[in-house]
Amino acid sequence: MLTSFDARTGVPLAELTASGPADIDAACAAAAAAFAAWQGSDGVTRGALLRALATALEAERESLVALADRETALGPVRLNGELDRTAFQLRRFADIAERGEPFKVVDDPAVAGAPPAGHPAMQRWRVPLGPVAVFAASNFPFAFSVLGGDTASALAAGCPVVVKAHPGHPQLSQQTFALIQRVLAAQGLPAGLIGGVQGAAVEVGVQLIRHPLIAAGAFTGSTRGGAALAAEAAARPWPIPFFGELGSINPVIALPTELAAQGAALATTLAGSIALGCGQFCTNPGVVVLIDEAAGLDARAVNDAFVAQLAEALKAQQPHAMLTAGMRRAFDAGVGHWAEAGAQFLQREAAADDQPPRPVLAQVGATEFIARAALRDEVFGPSSLVVRCASHAQALQVLQAVGGSLTVTVWGAQADSAPVRDLVRGAMAIAGRVLFAGVPTGVAVTAAQQHGGPWPSSTRPESTSVGDAALGRFLRPVALQEAPAWLTERAGRPL
Amino acid sequence: MLTSFDARTGVPLAELTASGPADIDAACAAAAAAFAAWQGSDGVTRGALLRALATALEAERESLVALADRETALGPVRLNGELDRTAFQLRRFADIAERGEPFKVVDDPAVAGAPPAGHPAMQRWRVPLGPVAVFAASNFPFAFSVLGGDTASALAAGCPVVVKAHPGHPQLSQQTFALIQRVLAAQGLPAGLIGGVQGAAVEVGVQLIRHPLIAAGAFTGSTRGGAALAAEAAARPWPIPFFGELGSINPVIALPTELAAQGAALATTLAGSIALGCGQFCTNPGVVVLIDEAAGLDARAVNDAFVAQLAEALKAQQPHAMLTAGMRRAFDAGVGHWAEAGAQFLQREAAADDQPPRPVLAQVGATEFIARAALRDEVFGPSSLVVRCASHAQALQVLQAVGGSLTVTVWGAQADSAPVRDLVRGAMAIAGRVLFAGVPTGVAVTAAQQHGGPWPSSTRPESTSVGDAALGRFLRPVALQEAPAWLTERAGRPL
Repeated sequence: MLTSFDARTGVPLAELTASGPADIDAACAAAAAAFAAWQGSDGVTRGALLRALATALEAERESLVALADRETALGPVRLNGELDRTAFQLRRFADIAERGEPFKVVDDPAVAGAPPAGHPAMQRWRVPLGPVAVFAASNFPFAFSVLGGDTASALAAGCPVVVKAHPGHPQLSQQTFALIQRVLAAQGLPAGLIGGVQGAAVEVGVQLIRHPLIAAGAFTGSTRGGAALAAEAAARPWPIPFFGELGSINPVIALPTELAAQGAALATTLAGSIALGCGQFCTNPGVVVLIDEAAGLDARAVNDAFVAQLAEALKAQQPHAMLTAGMRRAFDAGVGHWAEAGAQFLQREAAADDQPPRPVLAQVGATEFIARAALRDEVFGPSSLVVRCASHAQALQVLQAVGGSLTVTVWGAQADSAPVRDLVRGAMAIAGRVLFAGVPTGVAVTAAQQHGGPWPSSTRPESTSVGDAALGRFLRPVALQEAPAWLTERAGRPL
Repeated sequence: MLTSFDARTGVPLAELTASGPADIDAACAAAAAAFAAWQGSDGVTRGALLRALATALEAERESLVALADRETALGPVRLNGELDRTAFQLRRFADIAERGEPFKVVDDPAVAGAPPAGHPAMQRWRVPLGPVAVFAASNFPFAFSVLGGDTASALAAGCPVVVKAHPGHPQLSQQTFALIQRVLAAQGLPAGLIGGVQGAAVEVGVQLIRHPLIAAGAFTGSTRGGAALAAEAAARPWPIPFFGELGSINPVIALPTELAAQGAALATTLAGSIALGCGQFCTNPGVVVLIDEAAGLDARAVNDAFVAQLAEALKAQQPHAMLTAGMRRAFDAGVGHWAEAGAQFLQREAAADDQPPRPVLAQVGATEFIARAALRDEVFGPSSLVVRCASHAQALQVLQAVGGSLTVTVWGAQADSAPVRDLVRGAMAIAGRVLFAGVPTGVAVTAAQQHGGPWPSSTRPESTSVGDAALGRFLRPVALQEAPAWLTERAGRPL
């Protein structure tokens, strides 16, 4: 069984049936059957489906948002904005499918003469992989869930999907699947093109990623869960690519010159980012790196003042309830691990289990942060850990200890200098996205976006789960050598 | 110890010292030290190195080819051609580095307004991964060895390499490393930019791929060896991408209409491809798929005649010695497995252990081929297995049973028809390259090339180890958000 809970009260709302092995098998078989025609569909057909899905989402906005709010406690303002973003993503991938850039054929006419310079006529196509297993996230019930970016980009690429709904919002997922089926029927497309399975047990996801008809996996969630599924994908008799967007601690390096100039404003901005959505973002700024050294400045005093302002600003934040009781327990446990590892708390207030958590700010020295791996684990929730460094060089070591992150933010790098370059180099070495202003929460859906960094923030740092390039995950190149005209004229559209 | 053997006689030529743990560690550390500057080098610098390496290879052609011939028995004609190809590859990647297309920045200016449509200024760069462990192949002592395509593309991408030399040609590898060091010194570049390790023991490769300073692996070799190293790469505390080009059986589907028209010529061409280089190519045509059904044609008789012509043409081939005694034993064992699995031999002659192997042609029914996995294992050497199918549908099942292959060749698909489309669809589903004329041996180094197909032919079917796109394996995207002008002006060149 699968239970829907009210995220604010913990009261059960409904019991749903979890998918069994036969359900999963049927969904994968239906997706594989749908692949034959969908892989050869044109951009107009794909675009029409994606646009119809966006329109249907917007048409059911009121009931979807109400249901999402009960199951996630994320609030109607955020959820309406997220629904907007989800519709935007669907339409953006519709545009991309219609324009067809990712499918552009590399035409490589024959060159006369002996090799290596001479060669036969070649065309390089990019063809869809096949049915994609999409693992929905808890923290984005629209944008990274049933009709989220993975589903939109896989469909635009020509791949059917089988979505494993997240057990944190099962009724919302079910309503979304129902909406999808109506749209598919109206478009004259097979029901299996967008299949769904559900269940809270690990077995559901494992059976799905191991299913022989599944050609790739796309996942957004914890490092532990993603690593386990990545291992399953690699251990198959026929290994498949697994695009996992995992956990991340997103260091923010705030240089003392910048804090001296506008520390108060930055503290307010940062506190808002830490507490936003009750801190339940993969881009949540979990580490604040401060350097107690600057020419012509009492850097330590500046940093002390900033930390005090940040603690004050965090105290003023009123996070809402977390997504699930399990996440709340994990958050409390994570904060407890900081305490055990010797962190000094600057803001920490008790809150009853049935109340939203209070924001947490703690502080450690760089030496401890580098020495103790437990301090580098993601604490999912409204919290951040200040790491105090004696020098730029030590801040670089902190970045190296982090190893991989979706984002690194560097405040105060407007002017070029050797130490700034070192920090930016260190940031680029470990991050998928480096910010020079603002906060890492809020991932724009754009042409240049990169959401995915070195391990442990993702399993495939060369790919992104947000932005236009997300589509390319689900394509693979095929070279056609001396292909007949009837085939080359299809211009990259498989048969 | 590591022994160099004369490939024709098996006589030991020299004893070399295998790399120990300290040597491997030193090579990786030197590569990591070289990365800091090389990642930010410009196209002119990279191009100059690659061109100087090509020139140095050509300057030492005589002694390199003579040594390669002794250690591999591949013959001076082939080896001179391969050296030409290797120099061509180096210069082609020099051109690419100089032109800079793979590093082109996606510029995504700010859009005013609220999200999802509004967003900050973004730039999408592609930055080099870091030191690459290159595992040289036995069967291409130049083109897929120390200075082969993996090394050339990694250097062009901005990554240092540590090459594990193949123990099948250790003296040649050593001479190539010496040549490289002279070129690096002349260019004023650090010795560690192109490092080398050697050894016949599994531990050398495992320690290399597990080294914490290695950021990616590139391998050409057997499915077994590649799968083992891929598992090591995935099991690291910090998993890294592993680009393995593994084994492949490269089906050739010869439609009866085509064989009726030009069977004799095709038999000669195919026999030459099967025996070329003593069959020691990853694109060797290991399976010939024949369909005993055609409208207005006695397809069975046509196919029988073709098989007889192919056996005759193969008998006339005089393969040279295999690369190593171990490979010769593996070839004999593989042919023995065909016999155990019930294949009928159409051409098989005994040859003494100290003589080159004789070409082998065997035949099985499609039902047996699909039922017995042993018949689908690659037999590395001058051999091919004819698979007789009762129908187009059964030929499709044969392709599905193969599962993944570097190439599939379809002869007779010039005209469009439903059964031809089915076969081409089946071919594209399992192959990285589909040929419609000629033979799969001979992989052109071009813009549209794709050398890498679904498992088990490669570990990353979305990548290629040959052709211009090989460079992209060693880059990963980084998005810069609101980056200062001093940084965006570097146009994709890391600091």
